[in-house]
Amino acid sequence: MRAFVKTKAEPGGTELREVPVPEAGPNDVLIKVKVASICGTDVHIYEWDSWAQNRIKAPLVYGHEFAGEVVKVGSNVQHVKAGEFVSGECHIACGHCFNCRNNMQHVCLNTKIFGVDRAGAFAEYISIPENNVWHNDPSLPPELCSIQDPLGNAVHTVFATDFATRDVAVLGIGPIGAMAVSVLKNCGASQVFAIGRKNQYRIDLAKAVGADFALSSNTDDVKGIIMKATNGKGADCIIETAGSVEAVDLGLDVMRSGGTFAMLGVFSKPMTLDLSKKVVFKYATIKGINGRLMYDTWYRMAGLFRIPRFREDMKKIITHRFRFDEFEKAMATMRSGQSGKVVMHLE
Amino acid sequence: MRAFVKTKAEPGGTELREVPVPEAGPNDVLIKVKVASICGTDVHIYEWDSWAQNRIKAPLVYGHEFAGEVVKVGSNVQHVKAGEFVSGECHIACGHCFNCRNNMQHVCLNTKIFGVDRAGAFAEYISIPENNVWHNDPSLPPELCSIQDPLGNAVHTVFATDFATRDVAVLGIGPIGAMAVSVLKNCGASQVFAIGRKNQYRIDLAKAVGADFALSSNTDDVKGIIMKATNGKGADCIIETAGSVEAVDLGLDVMRSGGTFAMLGVFSKPMTLDLSKKVVFKYATIKGINGRLMYDTWYRMAGLFRIPRFREDMKKIITHRFRFDEFEKAMATMRSGQSGKVVMHLE
Amino acid sequence: MRAFVKTKAEPGGTELREVPVPEAGPNDVLIKVKVASICGTDVHIYEWDSWAQNRIKAPLVYGHEFAGEVVKVGSNVQHVKAGEFVSGECHIACGHCFNCRNNMQHVCLNTKIFGVDRAGAFAEYISIPENNVWHNDPSLPPELCSIQDPLGNAVHTVFATDFATRDVAVLGIGPIGAMAVSVLKNCGASQVFAIGRKNQYRIDLAKAVGADFALSSNTDDVKGIIMKATNGKGADCIIETAGSVEAVDLGLDVMRSGGTFAMLGVFSKPMTLDLSKKVVFKYATIKGINGRLMYDTWYRMAGLFRIPRFREDMKKIITHRFRFDEFEKAMATMRSGQSGKVVMHLE
Amino acid sequence: MRAFVKTKAEPGGTELREVPVPEAGPNDVLIKVKVASICGTDVHIYEWDSWAQNRIKAPLVYGHEFAGEVVKVGSNVQHVKAGEFVSGECHIACGHCFNCRNNMQHVCLNTKIFGVDRAGAFAEYISIPENNVWHNDPSLPPELCSIQDPLGNAVHTVFATDFATRDVAVLGIGPIGAMAVSVLKNCGASQVFAIGRKNQYRIDLAKAVGADFALSSNTDDVKGIIMKATNGKGADCIIETAGSVEAVDLGLDVMRSGGTFAMLGVFSKPMTLDLSKKVVFKYATIKGINGRLMYDTWYRMAGLFRIPRFREDMKKIITHRFRFDEFEKAMATMRSGQSGKVVMHLE
Repeated sequence: MRAFVKTKAEPGGTELREVPVPEAGPNDVLIKVKVASICGTDVHIYEWDSWAQNRIKAPLVYGHEFAGEVVKVGSNVQHVKAGEFVSGECHIACGHCFNCRNNMQHVCLNTKIFGVDRAGAFAEYISIPENNVWHNDPSLPPELCSIQDPLGNAVHTVFATDFATRDVAVLGIGPIGAMAVSVLKNCGASQVFAIGRKNQYRIDLAKAVGADFALSSNTDDVKGIIMKATNGKGADCIIETAGSVEAVDLGLDVMRSGGTFAMLGVFSKPMTLDLSKKVVFKYATIKGINGRLMYDTWYRMAGLFRIPRFREDMKKIITHRFRFDEFEKAMATMRSGQSGKVVMHLE
Repeated sequence: MRAFVKTKAEPGGTELREVPVPEAGPNDVLIKVKVASICGTDVHIYEWDSWAQNRIKAPLVYGHEFAGEVVKVGSNVQHVKAGEFVSGECHIACGHCFNCRNNMQHVCLNTKIFGVDRAGAFAEYISIPENNVWHNDPSLPPELCSIQDPLGNAVHTVFATDFATRDVAVLGIGPIGAMAVSVLKNCGASQVFAIGRKNQYRIDLAKAVGADFALSSNTDDVKGIIMKATNGKGADCIIETAGSVEAVDLGLDVMRSGGTFAMLGVFSKPMTLDLSKKVVFKYATIKGINGRLMYDTWYRMAGLFRIPRFREDMKKIITHRFRFDEFEKAMATMRSGQSGKVVMHLE
Repeated sequence: MRAFVKTKAEPGGTELREVPVPEAGPNDVLIKVKVASICGTDVHIYEWDSWAQNRIKAPLVYGHEFAGEVVKVGSNVQHVKAGEFVSGECHIACGHCFNCRNNMQHVCLNTKIFGVDRAGAFAEYISIPENNVWHNDPSLPPELCSIQDPLGNAVHTVFATDFATRDVAVLGIGPIGAMAVSVLKNCGASQVFAIGRKNQYRIDLAKAVGADFALSSNTDDVKGIIMKATNGKGADCIIETAGSVEAVDLGLDVMRSGGTFAMLGVFSKPMTLDLSKKVVFKYATIKGINGRLMYDTWYRMAGLFRIPRFREDMKKIITHRFRFDEFEKAMATMRSGQSGKVVMHLE
Repeated sequence: MRAFVKTKAEPGGTELREVPVPEAGPNDVLIKVKVASICGTDVHIYEWDSWAQNRIKAPLVYGHEFAGEVVKVGSNVQHVKAGEFVSGECHIACGHCFNCRNNMQHVCLNTKIFGVDRAGAFAEYISIPENNVWHNDPSLPPELCSIQDPLGNAVHTVFATDFATRDVAVLGIGPIGAMAVSVLKNCGASQVFAIGRKNQYRIDLAKAVGADFALSSNTDDVKGIIMKATNGKGADCIIETAGSVEAVDLGLDVMRSGGTFAMLGVFSKPMTLDLSKKVVFKYATIKGINGRLMYDTWYRMAGLFRIPRFREDMKKIITHRFRFDEFEKAMATMRSGQSGKVVMHLE
């Protein structure tokens, strides 16, 4: 089969290669990929930053966002059948550690992530354990099925707060931030403040999917605007997807006393934090988030996709579509910042 | 001043009388009523049913849903000023009992309700304690300000469940049921099943404010429809506003294992309940609800009213408007069942 | 191997038989049973009541409470090794249904229970899936390891309420009720009221494991005593293990406004319930409970067993010990009501 | 009356003066102080550190922990009577701001604290609003009634976590840390690790009130000990009372994935924090805490005081008793670090 393989431990270093179709063990499911989408993590692997250098062992078929059709199931598989249209949760959990046995499979202490620690989805076929299969609603367009991994991040983060009927600030408006804006507005957030830095394309996208205010922290008086719109109260909840300590600082500043701060971003440097003022006296709750609840979050996504306005928003967030063999173009688009989600169709 | 007074302990028995403007004690606020609306409780008082016979002492100025302008404040009042446009929470809490001191003022063990236990809002003026005043957003139409008492019931009941992204059945579609439908759809419920008995007017109203399915338990196969739409799972949450044991029975039947049943209705007869099957083996949670959280629910309403679609829904739910002196017509409309909320304007 | 088998569809009808050692499939673990204990469910099977007649297919090796040593593991098993000392969670979950994928494996929609739906633990060997194995702390006495199934019921029920520092009534003081009393007192319940009917043996046992009040609903003024001890407030939480509608009625009566009622019992008849008075106006929460959370509850038990006083309590609750071949004596003791837990040692 | 007054804006600067008995306004209650105790905050005021210099306006009667007898009530007071034995919650809340109306009176946006912002309890009489009065159980020794302010901090912090049956580390073992240890052990924490720096007196005190491990971060391998005792899992919850960024760092290190960190301490310098590693990837929850829930926490304390072992622990934590006129000795004892709580008796 054809696959995009990180072959060299260097920036770029990705080749379209002919590789064997992966084996499906007794507990595994073999899937023919129909759509794959590009995650920020894939950009890190492509660009070969310090995280990628430490984590990734080339050669690797990367990619972990996809949807496709089951073509074969292992002998032990009971709940998945050939012909079904599925997506995959990328965290392969051991099922037995403390976290797995306490409803936190998504932070399994022995996690392997496909597309990171083993062969992924930028390929014609992918093999994943039965437990990682998600059955898609057949009426859902395949490209929406493919983006459930980042959407799940957004849903997980948003639902870690009591956002409904409240004022919420979203820090960072890449694709996940834009998805968070839409989740919030479709689920009854009162005022949503989407805050980017200087990327007008994405500020416009946040606005297009419902942000009441789409602001640039470079040029707008973000704190003044939020305080005015909330009559001096501040935002009740903060959804952080930026991975910037400056954004965290701003977020804690505009958050009201007793508010909740859900933090999904990955930070490249440590933060200097006045715990007394920003956490203790503020009676703040700060929650670190990663992955998606397995499978609470996926059920929430299925519920959301039944809401027509939400489905439309997600279509808007997919701004670019490519053929699979246009991988380099797709990656360049994603890296340009002038895009929402970028998806590749395999046929 | 003019007021509608339950003067006789009998059905009807309501007269427009000239009575003294109420006193405002040191902790009280005197309000000139601009809009008052009619609650199901007012219908009970009017019809003089067994509940009313036991609770109400005639003569009584009744009515407890209103909005108006502050005209005078008592000497101890610190946070309310003359000229402000306010509504009133009808539960006068003692502030000191176990419930009051544990965030359950709305079920204060010594509650008095204005319009039930003391003079109410079907009058030109009403006096209430400062603690019961809610400051309205000046941009909110007065008649929407008046209906926050029943809307608060709906919001309190809905928010007692984990409804967002879930499938929800609303049992009973009087004004509070219709409000619950709108709250649910504006806050991200996936599929909402609104279930009435045979009142087509109200089935249509539930549909108009967003119900995905508006059904009659008399003529529709409610269980079959819900099971089909949820792929055999059933509803995740049940919002009960009907006060009918048959509705509760149906609700427990269509609720999925592990679901939550929030119960607001008042029941005229006891229920026969198979606890093993319907509660224990079902891993069900049943929550009794009354009143509105003071003032969490009011803040949620303020947040909702900032959502344009929600505001429009509430306007649709107010189906009839009368002058204050048309009280008998307003009451007759409300009693006909061919209405949503019925409001009276005082000038 | 030797096993106690329900051979005849009639009361008693249990024989010690020589049967084949069970197969261990690829995902299974074969365990040599060291201790087995008798559950109320086993009494139902023995007595062949209507529940047993409907559910049980003779011949069946019954029993589901046990501890033993792993002697063999299937080819797919990764986290269990021969020689380990383990217990078993009796609910075999499918892992894929809505409940399994939403942290409710214990109410899996396709559950099979060993000792009920397939061969159980009143035998020298039992085979269970790897996922159902619980690794015991090697320092824990084997007979304490055996009683984690009913203890898990008690812990699950108690932890469904906000009991710490609160006043709690336990309805029903069979072994699970006594365990609940101990869990409550070891975890900071303020006053615990243990309420039986007329079995003095068990009232004494409840007292021995820490009940502040151990009462008979036949001879004590339970409501008067609770109201006096709580200064008229009532119990904050109710733990129901009796399976008696009269007990539920009493429990709702003595529960304070805003309280939580956790219900584990299985009821032989329906209840007549005044929903308005006992649920709605009381702002009550009622939770149906069954099984044990997989595996949150098991981790809680492990934490409890590290508390010396708790361990001592559990030893007191095991009142009778028999050899395996004394099954009929053990069962007679359990049926007499003059016991706590009854355990059988296999060597 | 006699009162200890901070008369000079300098270290020490406290005099025993004759001052007028405070006025009791219409909503106030005048109390004759029987016992007062010394808080860390009082030490700050005495030592005149930078916090005190910014906040305190001399002359000030300080002290905010006390118990006494009501001698007079204002004309509006309805729920407090002369002769009652009471304590006082030191946060005077406005009752009307967002926080007050959302169950967060303890972080009222307009809080005044008696003994800090207005006359306090190091005096023969104190006047406080009715809403700040707590009725003590008459059977409770007066000096235990006096220490409910710091005990409330401990209870509030502990109950912000899911500590029961779990492993918990308490960082900082001054009086509040020692109280937290006792609350945890009386409420079912499995293993409690109490961690001080080098004050052996307080390490011994933590041990005396039940810590399973009482450790010095200076001389013990705290991380190694916790990891070993928890089989490599780490502590489930962290209770921080130290106000030291080094302690926070240690706490995040020893906390398991998915754990909760409740933070009460006040920090004299900012912290450098690796948010990715310590919060996001750890799936951590961090909660800032201050004050006590009004009055949920006070009810919890009342429930705890009914537990004999807990009462004994609190008596152990009060290590020194003085006459009121021995204020300087009492303060010196508190400042020495060689004490638990220090109380003064007024007669």
